[in-house]
Amino acid sequence: MKPLTNEEQVNYMKEALVEANYAWMIDEVPIGAVVVHDGQIIGRGHNLREHGQDATMHAEVLAITEACEYLHSWRLWDCQLFVTVEPCLMCSGAIINSQLPEVYFGARDPKAGAVRSLYTVLEDDRLNHRVNVTEGVLQEESSTIMKEFFKTIREKRKKVKRNGGN
Amino acid sequence: MKPLTNEEQVNYMKEALVEANYAWMIDEVPIGAVVVHDGQIIGRGHNLREHGQDATMHAEVLAITEACEYLHSWRLWDCQLFVTVEPCLMCSGAIINSQLPEVYFGARDPKAGAVRSLYTVLEDDRLNHRVNVTEGVLQEESSTIMKEFFKTIREKRKKVKRNGGN
Repeated sequence: MKPLTNEEQVNYMKEALVEANYAWMIDEVPIGAVVVHDGQIIGRGHNLREHGQDATMHAEVLAITEACEYLHSWRLWDCQLFVTVEPCLMCSGAIINSQLPEVYFGARDPKAGAVRSLYTVLEDDRLNHRVNVTEGVLQEESSTIMKEFFKTIREKRKKVKRNGGN
Repeated sequence: MKPLTNEEQVNYMKEALVEANYAWMIDEVPIGAVVVHDGQIIGRGHNLREHGQDATMHAEVLAITEACEYLHSWRLWDCQLFVTVEPCLMCSGAIINSQLPEVYFGARDPKAGAVRSLYTVLEDDRLNHRVNVTEGVLQEESSTIMKEFFKTIREKRKKVKRNGGN
């Protein structure tokens, strides 16, 4: 697999950020992901936990499922996954199970991140698959959109409280 | 949530084994799962990775998704998950994300198990959810069906080899 240039990495992460923005537009925690194969985006996803009322509907899982469908294969060999925020345990497990060789993420998630923060499961020699991880691609943008989202939520809640619950 | 009697635990695991058998009937690795709510099975699943060509189609994920749909909620509070084999990282993450309080599994998976074998993620104090785990319910049956499945696969491969690939 040809290594991606910095410019390519940034461009694909911008697409993941477009997905994160879609999530924000419908009041979901703004995380987005894309799966790239041979220079083409073959899977996209944004967090849909609230709209789908399904705990498995994280951006990465949805993008992986779409990519598997596109390739008619559960093995995402020769693919790259871009995601704005560090994957959780479930999504890291989905990355391992689909044998994705490369993952790029923007901002760390100190509370649930399973790639660098709480665990480093993508580089665990005991598992039958290891992943090349690059972190910090458009970190600032990926982090800012999350902070802005939670700031808006807090402000909405304060307003509701001030208005006596109305 | 009322604690389950041994008899109830065995009966629900039998249902998970029924699911595992469905998987075997279509040549999938025989793992099955059910989600129980208030004494009723509200989600069922068996491994469908090959038929779905989707790396996320593990028994637990499918059972959790069905249960979320049934309850119209991504939070599986007051639910129990029964699965024949120890959950992997992805499925353990899905259990955490759906805030399932209780998990029962049959046999350990020394190569990929994330509940007892390689990790103990369901009891990690750093995460925002912890799960009560009971292992060994119908362990022998859950383990035997896996061993028999892989034995059959090996025999099929040997036969193909003996026949020169036909």
